[in-house]
Amino acid sequence: MKITMSSVYVFTLLVAAGAFIVAFYFYKWIKQIEVKNQQVSAISNLIAKGSDTFLRKEYSILAKFSVVMIILIFIFLPHPLWRSNITDNLVMSTAYLAGTIFSGLAGLIGMKVATMANARTAEAATKDISQAFMSSFRGGSVMGMAVVGFSTLGVALLFWLTEDTTALLGFSFGASSLALFAKAGGGIFTKAADIAADLTGKVELGIPEDDPRNPAVIADNVGDNVGDCAGMGADLFDSHVASLSAALVMAVTLDKIATNGQNTIMVFLFAALGLLASMIGVLFARMEKNQDPTHALNVSTYTTSLVFFALSAFTTYLFGFFWRLWIATIIGLIVGVLIGVVSDYFTNDENLPVRNVAEMSQTGPAFTILGGMSYGFISVLPALIGIGLASILSFKVAEPLGEGYALFGIAMAAVGMLSIVGMIISNDAYGPIVDNARGIVEMASLGDKALEVTDSLDSAGNTVKAVTKGFSIAAAGLTVISLLAAFMTTVNESAIELGLVSVGEVYLNGFDVMNPTVLFGLLVGTAVPAVFSALLIQGVTKNAGLLVKEIHRQFNEIEGLKEGLPNVVPDYDRVIELATEGALRELIPAGAFAIIMTLAVGLIAGVSAIGGFLVGNILGGLLLALFMSNSGGLWDNAKKYIESGNFGGKGSDAHKASVIGDTVGDPFKDTAGPSINTQITVVSLVASLMASIFLMYSIL
Amino acid sequence: MKITMSSVYVFTLLVAAGAFIVAFYFYKWIKQIEVKNQQVSAISNLIAKGSDTFLRKEYSILAKFSVVMIILIFIFLPHPLWRSNITDNLVMSTAYLAGTIFSGLAGLIGMKVATMANARTAEAATKDISQAFMSSFRGGSVMGMAVVGFSTLGVALLFWLTEDTTALLGFSFGASSLALFAKAGGGIFTKAADIAADLTGKVELGIPEDDPRNPAVIADNVGDNVGDCAGMGADLFDSHVASLSAALVMAVTLDKIATNGQNTIMVFLFAALGLLASMIGVLFARMEKNQDPTHALNVSTYTTSLVFFALSAFTTYLFGFFWRLWIATIIGLIVGVLIGVVSDYFTNDENLPVRNVAEMSQTGPAFTILGGMSYGFISVLPALIGIGLASILSFKVAEPLGEGYALFGIAMAAVGMLSIVGMIISNDAYGPIVDNARGIVEMASLGDKALEVTDSLDSAGNTVKAVTKGFSIAAAGLTVISLLAAFMTTVNESAIELGLVSVGEVYLNGFDVMNPTVLFGLLVGTAVPAVFSALLIQGVTKNAGLLVKEIHRQFNEIEGLKEGLPNVVPDYDRVIELATEGALRELIPAGAFAIIMTLAVGLIAGVSAIGGFLVGNILGGLLLALFMSNSGGLWDNAKKYIESGNFGGKGSDAHKASVIGDTVGDPFKDTAGPSINTQITVVSLVASLMASIFLMYSIL
Repeated sequence: MKITMSSVYVFTLLVAAGAFIVAFYFYKWIKQIEVKNQQVSAISNLIAKGSDTFLRKEYSILAKFSVVMIILIFIFLPHPLWRSNITDNLVMSTAYLAGTIFSGLAGLIGMKVATMANARTAEAATKDISQAFMSSFRGGSVMGMAVVGFSTLGVALLFWLTEDTTALLGFSFGASSLALFAKAGGGIFTKAADIAADLTGKVELGIPEDDPRNPAVIADNVGDNVGDCAGMGADLFDSHVASLSAALVMAVTLDKIATNGQNTIMVFLFAALGLLASMIGVLFARMEKNQDPTHALNVSTYTTSLVFFALSAFTTYLFGFFWRLWIATIIGLIVGVLIGVVSDYFTNDENLPVRNVAEMSQTGPAFTILGGMSYGFISVLPALIGIGLASILSFKVAEPLGEGYALFGIAMAAVGMLSIVGMIISNDAYGPIVDNARGIVEMASLGDKALEVTDSLDSAGNTVKAVTKGFSIAAAGLTVISLLAAFMTTVNESAIELGLVSVGEVYLNGFDVMNPTVLFGLLVGTAVPAVFSALLIQGVTKNAGLLVKEIHRQFNEIEGLKEGLPNVVPDYDRVIELATEGALRELIPAGAFAIIMTLAVGLIAGVSAIGGFLVGNILGGLLLALFMSNSGGLWDNAKKYIESGNFGGKGSDAHKASVIGDTVGDPFKDTAGPSINTQITVVSLVASLMASIFLMYSIL
Repeated sequence: MKITMSSVYVFTLLVAAGAFIVAFYFYKWIKQIEVKNQQVSAISNLIAKGSDTFLRKEYSILAKFSVVMIILIFIFLPHPLWRSNITDNLVMSTAYLAGTIFSGLAGLIGMKVATMANARTAEAATKDISQAFMSSFRGGSVMGMAVVGFSTLGVALLFWLTEDTTALLGFSFGASSLALFAKAGGGIFTKAADIAADLTGKVELGIPEDDPRNPAVIADNVGDNVGDCAGMGADLFDSHVASLSAALVMAVTLDKIATNGQNTIMVFLFAALGLLASMIGVLFARMEKNQDPTHALNVSTYTTSLVFFALSAFTTYLFGFFWRLWIATIIGLIVGVLIGVVSDYFTNDENLPVRNVAEMSQTGPAFTILGGMSYGFISVLPALIGIGLASILSFKVAEPLGEGYALFGIAMAAVGMLSIVGMIISNDAYGPIVDNARGIVEMASLGDKALEVTDSLDSAGNTVKAVTKGFSIAAAGLTVISLLAAFMTTVNESAIELGLVSVGEVYLNGFDVMNPTVLFGLLVGTAVPAVFSALLIQGVTKNAGLLVKEIHRQFNEIEGLKEGLPNVVPDYDRVIELATEGALRELIPAGAFAIIMTLAVGLIAGVSAIGGFLVGNILGGLLLALFMSNSGGLWDNAKKYIESGNFGGKGSDAHKASVIGDTVGDPFKDTAGPSINTQITVVSLVASLMASIFLMYSIL
C-alpha cells in the first residue's frame, strides 16, 4: 500500500492530538475527585505554591539564557551570518525557541497535574488502594502524554513546515539545553531539600520522614515535583526528540537516493505508533485490590511494548517497509526492556544486592557505601553489553539494505527503544506523586491505613523508577551513538559546502582511535561527565548545608517547634526560598562547563577530536550514569528494607548506616546520574550544529 | 659517534648491575644499624614472619597459576603448536616464566629489606629524624633499584639472546600477570587488615591506631609490606617492562627500514640512563635536621628528572639520535611530573580539597563521602588532558620523521615518563616502611619524640604516595596507548602470515569508532575496570568482615586483653592466617575476569572489537583509577588533618565522619585504584599475544 507524506503528517498530528485528549481526560478525571479534608488541601496548596515559585524563577533564568542562545544561534548557525542567508539562521533560532517552549510547557503541565494528583491520592488512600493507585498513575500519565504529545507534535510540525533536518537539530538542541538546566536545577533543589530534611529530622531529632514540624518537609515535597517530575519530563522529552531527529537526518539522506520517502515515513509512523501504544497502555492500566502495584505498572509496560510490536509489524507489512529495519527497531525495544530488568535486579529488595548491602550495613556505614558502590560498578557491565549488542545487531541486520542503512539501523534501534517512552514517563511521574501523597498523609495525620497504602505505592514507585532510569540512560546512549553518525554526515556536507573537498568526495571517513587527535578527544570526553557530576553533587551538598543551618535556626528561634506544640508552624517558605536561590545559583555552571568543553575541544583540535570527544563522553557518561543511578536506587531500597524490620529495623545501627548510604545515593540517583543523559545529548547536538564552525576555525 | 648493538647491551647490563650494587650497598648500610631494643626486634620479627608466610602462600598459588599459563602458552603462543615450530613456543613460555620470576624476585627482595628497615627506622626515630629518614628511604631504594635493575636486566638479556619482540611481549605478560595477582592479593590483605584494625580499635574501643592489644595490628603492618611494598613493586616492574616492550616492538620495525638500529639503541640507552639517573638520585638523597621530609623526597625526584634530561640530551647529541624523539621522551617525563603535581593538589592537606572535605565532615559522613568523591571526579580531568596532550604532542613532534615514527613518538613518551621509575618506587616504598616504623614505635612504647618523628615521616609518605600513584596511572595509560599500536602491528603481521592479505598490504588500518564492532568493544571494555574494581572491593569488605568477627572473638575470649593487662597478648597469627586465606581466595576471580573478558570479546567479535575493547579499557580504567586513588588519598589526609586538631580534632563528630571516609578510601586507593593499572596492561598484552588466534578463530 502507498501512503503520501502529507497523510503521514496528518496521522502523526492526529495521534499527538489524541495524546492531548487522553491527558485532558485524565486531568478532568483527577479533578472530579473531591478533596474533603481541609488540611490535605492546605498542604497540597503549599506544595503547589512552592513548586510554582521555583518553576517561575527557574524558567525566568532559563528564558534569559535562551535569549542569549537565540541571539548566538541567529548569528552563527547553521552558518555564520556573513556566510549564510538570514532566513536559514532565522529558522534555526526559531526552531531552538520552539524546542525550549515545547519542552518547558510539557514539564509545566505535567507538574501542575502532579501537584493536583498528590492530594487526591492521599485522600483516596484512606479508603482504597486501587483508587489511590489510579489517581497517582493517571496523574503521572498526564505528564507522559503531554511530553510525548508535545515532542511528536513539535517534530512533525517543524519538519512539515521546513523539511530541514538542521532545523530539527536546532529544535532538539532547544529541548535538550532546557532539559539540561531544568534537570540540574530541579535535581539540586530536590536533593538539597531531601538531604536537609533527613539530616535534621530522621538523624538528629529522630522524628519521622514527613513530620510537619520539620521546616524542610514542604521543600522536600516541592522538590519531588520540580526535580523528579518536571526535570525528568524535560529529560525524556529531549531524548525522544533527539532520537527522532537523528533518525530523520539519516532517513532524509537515504530517501534522497531511492525509496520514495519510505524511510522518513517509517520514522514518523513508528513514532506515532509508539505514542498510540502508550496511550492504550495508560488507558487500560488497572490495579486489582490485592494486587502488587509494581505488578500493575509492569503489566502496563509490557502491554505497551506488545502493542507497539504488533502495530509496527502490521504497518511494516502494510506499507512494505524494510523488515530488516523493523527488526532493528524491535532489537532496540527488547534491549531497552532488558536493561530495565537489570536495573531492577540491582535495586529491588527481593534480590541479593540490596539484601547484602542491608546486611553489610550492620558493620557500619563504610560497608554500606563500599557494598553499594561495588554493586553499582557491576551493574554497568550488562547494560553496556546490552547497548553494544543493540548497536552491533541493528547495524548488521540493516547493513545488507545498502550504503548508509547500517548506521540508520542503529538510529532505528534508538527509535524503537524510545517508542514506549510515553508509558515510561507515566510510570516515572507516578513516583513523585505517591511520594508527595505519603508526605501529605503523614502531615495531615490521615491514619495508619492510609500510611500503609501510600508506603506500598511508594515502594513500587522506587522500584519502577530505577527501571525507567536504566531504560532512559540506555536510550540516551543509543540515541547519541546515532547522533554521532549525524555529526559525521553534517561534517561531510559542510566540507563540501566549504569547498574543502569536491562533491562526491568524503572529508571524514570515520574516527580512528589510532589517530592521536581522536584519542585526545576520547580522553577529554571521558572526563567531562565526571566533572559535570561532581559540580552537581557539590551544588547539592553546598545547598543542603545551607538549608541545615536554616532549619537549626528555626528550631532554635521558633519556640515550641521542636516540642510540636499545637499551632506552632515552621517557616516553610523561607526554606523553599533558600533552596530555590541555591539551586538557581548552581544550575548554570555544570551545564555551561559541558558546552564550553565541547566548544574548546572543537575550536582547538577540530572535528576529529570532536568525534573522539563524543564517544568518550558516551562511554564515561554511561559508565557513571548507570553506576550512580543503580547504586543510588540500591541504597534507597536497602534503607527501606531495613526500615521494614530487617537487621534491627528502624533506629538500629544498620539503619543509621543505611541512612548515610541513602544520603550519598540521593544526589547520585536523582541529580547527577539522570542529568548525565541530558549532558551527553546536549554535547552531541552542540557538536553537530557547530560542525562547520569547527571545520573552518579550529586551530590544529 | 657510532655505537654497536653489543656495546649497548653491555652498557645496559652494566647499569643494571650498578643498580644491584647500590641496592646491596643500601642493604648493608641498613643492616649495620643495630637494633638494641628487644621489643622492637620482636615486633619487627613478627611482621617479617607474617609477611614471609603470606608471600610464600601467595607465590605458591601464583606458581600453580603460572604453570597452567606456561602450558597454555606453550600450546598456543605465539601460534598454536600445530601451525608453529616448537622452538618459538618454547622461547615464548620461557620468556613468560622469566617475567614471573624476575618480577617475583624484585618484590621479594624489596619486601625483605623493607621489613628489616622498619625496625631500624623505629629505633633511629628515638634519636634523630635525619637518621630515621635515611634508613626508611634507603630501605625503599633497595626496592626501587631491585625492581628497575631486574626489569632492565630482563629486557636486555632476553632481547640480546632472542632478538625477538614477541618473546619480549611474553616476558612482559609474565611480569604483568604476576603483578595483577600480587597487587590484588596484597591489596586485599592489606586493606582488609587495615579496615578491621581501624573498625575494632579506633572506632569501637577508641584505642590508638597501633595499640598492641588489637589482634589485627600486626596483620595491618604485614599488609603494608605485602600490599603497598611488594605489590606496588610488581606493578611498576610491569609498567616499566611494558613501556620498553612496546617501544622496542616499534623500534625494531622502524630499524628494519632504515637507520641502522638507531631506534633500538636509543630505547635501550634511555632506559639505562633513566636507571642511572635514579641511582644518582637515591645516592644523593639527604635530609637536613629541620627540613620537611616531603621536601627531601621531592628534591630527589626533581634531581633525578634533571639528570635524566641532561644525560639523554647529551646521548642524543653524541650518537646523533633524532632530536624529535628526544623531545617526545621529555614531553612524557614532564607530563608525568605534572600529573603527579595534580594528584598532590587534590590530596595534600595544604590545599582546598582536603580542607573542604574535612570541614564538610562536620555535617556528617555522607558529606565526607560526597565531598571526596566529587573532588576525585574533578581530579580526573587535568590528568586525562595531560595524557591526551602527551600523546598528541609526542605524536606530532615525531611525525615528520617518517612513517611509523608518529606512534613511536608516543611510545617514547611512555619510556620518558617511566624513565625515573627507579626513583618513584624508592619514594613509594619509603611509605610502608615508615608506616611500619610508626606502628613499632607505638607498640614498643618508644616515647613521644619517636612518635612525633615517625608521624612526620609518615605524613610525607602519604603525600608522596598519592603523587607516585598519579604518576604510575598516567604512565600505565600512555604505555597501553603505545601497546595499542603494538597490537595493530602484530595483527597486520599475523594477517600476512596467515595469508589473509598479501605482503605489502595492510589488514587493519585502525579502529574506527563508527564501526559497530569497534563500538561494541569500546562499550564492553569501559565496563571491565568497573567490574574488576568491584570484585576487589568486595574481596576487601568480605575479608574485613571476617577479621572483625575474629577480633571480637579474641576480645571476648582472651581474658584481660581488652583491659590491657600485662603479659596478655592477642593471637596475632590467627588474624594473619585468616587475612592470608581470605586474600588468596579472592585473588584469582578479579584478574581472571579481566583476562576472560578479553578472550571472550576477541573470540566472539574479533580483532576490531579488541581494538575498541583496549581503548574502552584504557578510558574506563584511567577514569576509575585516578578517581579512586585521588579520592582515597584525599580522605586519608582529611582524616589526618582533623586528627591534627582541626574541626574538633580526634574524637569529634567530624573525626568519626572522616574515619568513615578513610575506610571507604582504603580499598579505593590501595586495592582497586592501583590494580587497575596492571589490569589494563595485562589486557593489552593478552590482546597482542592472542592477535593471530583472534584473527583465525573469531566467530563474527
